[in-house]
Amino acid sequence: MANILIIGGSDAGISAALRAREIDDTTNVTMLVADAFPNYSICGLPFYLSGEVIDWHHLAHRTLGEIQETGINVELNTRALQINPQQHTVLIQKPDNSRELLQYDRLVIGTGAEPIRPTIPGLDHRGVFLLHSMEDSFAVADFIASHKPERALIIGAGYIGLEMADALHHQRIAVTVVEQLPSALPTVDRELGNALGSYIASHGVEVKTGVRIQEIRREGDVLRITGDGGFDQRVDMVLVVVGVKPVTELATGAGIATGQRGAIVVDRSMATNFDDIYAAGDCVVTYHCLLHADTYMPLGTTAHKQGRVAGENAAGGQARYGGSLGTQVVKVFDWAVARTGLRDHEAKSAGYHPVTVEFSTWDHKAYYPGAHRLTFRVTGDKITGQLLGAQLMGHWQGAVAKRIDIFAMALYHQMSVADILEVDLSYTPPLGSPWDAVQMAADHWQKHRQDA
Amino acid sequence: MANILIIGGSDAGISAALRAREIDDTTNVTMLVADAFPNYSICGLPFYLSGEVIDWHHLAHRTLGEIQETGINVELNTRALQINPQQHTVLIQKPDNSRELLQYDRLVIGTGAEPIRPTIPGLDHRGVFLLHSMEDSFAVADFIASHKPERALIIGAGYIGLEMADALHHQRIAVTVVEQLPSALPTVDRELGNALGSYIASHGVEVKTGVRIQEIRREGDVLRITGDGGFDQRVDMVLVVVGVKPVTELATGAGIATGQRGAIVVDRSMATNFDDIYAAGDCVVTYHCLLHADTYMPLGTTAHKQGRVAGENAAGGQARYGGSLGTQVVKVFDWAVARTGLRDHEAKSAGYHPVTVEFSTWDHKAYYPGAHRLTFRVTGDKITGQLLGAQLMGHWQGAVAKRIDIFAMALYHQMSVADILEVDLSYTPPLGSPWDAVQMAADHWQKHRQDA
Repeated sequence: MANILIIGGSDAGISAALRAREIDDTTNVTMLVADAFPNYSICGLPFYLSGEVIDWHHLAHRTLGEIQETGINVELNTRALQINPQQHTVLIQKPDNSRELLQYDRLVIGTGAEPIRPTIPGLDHRGVFLLHSMEDSFAVADFIASHKPERALIIGAGYIGLEMADALHHQRIAVTVVEQLPSALPTVDRELGNALGSYIASHGVEVKTGVRIQEIRREGDVLRITGDGGFDQRVDMVLVVVGVKPVTELATGAGIATGQRGAIVVDRSMATNFDDIYAAGDCVVTYHCLLHADTYMPLGTTAHKQGRVAGENAAGGQARYGGSLGTQVVKVFDWAVARTGLRDHEAKSAGYHPVTVEFSTWDHKAYYPGAHRLTFRVTGDKITGQLLGAQLMGHWQGAVAKRIDIFAMALYHQMSVADILEVDLSYTPPLGSPWDAVQMAADHWQKHRQDA
Repeated sequence: MANILIIGGSDAGISAALRAREIDDTTNVTMLVADAFPNYSICGLPFYLSGEVIDWHHLAHRTLGEIQETGINVELNTRALQINPQQHTVLIQKPDNSRELLQYDRLVIGTGAEPIRPTIPGLDHRGVFLLHSMEDSFAVADFIASHKPERALIIGAGYIGLEMADALHHQRIAVTVVEQLPSALPTVDRELGNALGSYIASHGVEVKTGVRIQEIRREGDVLRITGDGGFDQRVDMVLVVVGVKPVTELATGAGIATGQRGAIVVDRSMATNFDDIYAAGDCVVTYHCLLHADTYMPLGTTAHKQGRVAGENAAGGQARYGGSLGTQVVKVFDWAVARTGLRDHEAKSAGYHPVTVEFSTWDHKAYYPGAHRLTFRVTGDKITGQLLGAQLMGHWQGAVAKRIDIFAMALYHQMSVADILEVDLSYTPPLGSPWDAVQMAADHWQKHRQDA
């Protein structure tokens, strides 16, 4: 009977634990959770802070009871302090602060990521928050409830920054979002980011791009934020959401190798450089199918898939991580913005010959009520015709997220852009077109690939 | 300069004409249209009759002017009377009833389909309608406007029957739908058809399954319909929508071979048994990728794809029809019902070893407002694990149509059910789950494939 020890109780850890038990229910699986919140949807935190999720308990993918019913031993408020790969032990600190040495046959590390702390003076002032964990969110929620802030500044217009702009606006707080790069949501092309910025601004959220924040000062009850180009604002709270970095002290302390952005190096079986130590989720590098190389891509979807592979292999299986396509989507107000694959500059760096063509059409036949405009940016290889990536933006009811998934399926199978037109996709006038919008976008790319 | 003659101005004909001009703009393309409505969306007729499309002109995919701008010669109200394959001529009847012999280098036949006329006595009574063409729809619309019917009976609970039930209900007409098979929408499994029937009934539409209509009689101002099991209703109008059959008199008169359900036999290049005669759309057999055989599948999506191939090849190209996966979707009230691939009994007939497993989950994380239940039925091969088909039903906002397209992409690439879990699909809590619902359904099939 193998002993599998799992460090971390978020997406990767829980996926590994569940899969190990599924593969072999004689396996003894213990999961160490540093806080009291196993298997919580941290992607759901903005919707808790918006007030749309009334009870934070609902953010749990599974309750503690449901996890324990699968036969997983869950140790809450228990921290791993040290891994000894030679001895196959982990030193832990228990809720009562006592220490213990746990033996393992196979170890899975799922220590996740933590917010990047930019070098801006003033981050420690009261009312300034970094957002990542459940505890962080409670602090923000408490602050909103007790201080009733009227104005907030969000530093960073990435996924979380924009979701939080929507969330705080939903709480009737006046919001400014500041991004140092030239457009909102810099993970998509500037054309889409600018249109998105205007859309967000039309809801009354101020969006300032190309502004680097220099300092946060406290002036009485108010936080004063200054930045490039004379930026100067007084607000009641500040959220800093400029990305995350892998949590790897435990791993590096044990001699586990790291790579891209300091994340733990794993192969496609999710094994580290040590026998019997696997790692998964936001703390590891992620193999990218189109780059044929490792990248750092901390996402819930990826963490689940990698955790499942790690758990299966820890239980003696032979699973292999399928790789990331870089698929992502975010909803801001009523728009969804999605991408999969590579953008032009990413594809160029990887040695492709990309051409990106923009195309706009209706999500369904315009004669049927409620049609929404969709804007596509399709990237393909000018020479081979291979699909390299797609970006899509429009009203979420236009099935933006699942239309990007059609492109993701095409990327997974290394399709040419032209071949997308061959596939028998569904159609009814209220929900699509005889050639679906994704096929029209592909056809448009095909016709204009030589223009660029 | 080649002369391409196209018979038919609906989906297949127009697609062929446009593609031929795209491939070679020196080609002389003439399109014969029997009525005055080229390139109309006949799939949109129910939404015109519901009143949701105010002006029927909006049903045109393109205006006559837009078609002519591409350099296509359009001959309206012009009927093809006879094809002479040896002479490469078509005898036509012009709007003034004069006749003329047209010469062609390549011919494309897109004569479409017509409604099946069941052997029910009384179909010729005033107030009884078969629905397919623009003219049919005008007759129905005129009848509704002039007679203000209060009660309608629809014979046939297929796609059009259910769309028309929704449409007439939208016009505040009391509707009964009668289907001779045991469940509504017999193109999906009975479990889904029954649930759909109950849903439609909850909107106040009466649904009677397992009832064969025996006779329609006129009793004064009222139509009296009798059927199996004592069925006896009095209504003001009757719609008969029990399917369509290919229109092929012209083709068979010229010695062009027919097959499945009397449809014109074509190969994957859309060529008939005659050199230089292509055919496409609702009048031809359709190659099915999973059956590896011809079937009869009259759908707008298929007609567009086949027409494009026919047009490309008529212009000297080398295109090949990718084949049908049997993908279909219909929206009835707020639900969408979709399918792709084979159902259990179809797969069994084709020599597979199918297992079908039902699964229900939320379209997105339930903690975010507005989550809808989705019901999947996934069919896979018990022995090989290959995906064979999928059915999906739920609120249209749950991206039912585009989620079925993810399965369609998987079928196109002959994926195993298990491999669907490998693909990097998009996720954000308001629009999905870390494992998308389609992946959860695939996982569920994988776990239960041996139960059946």
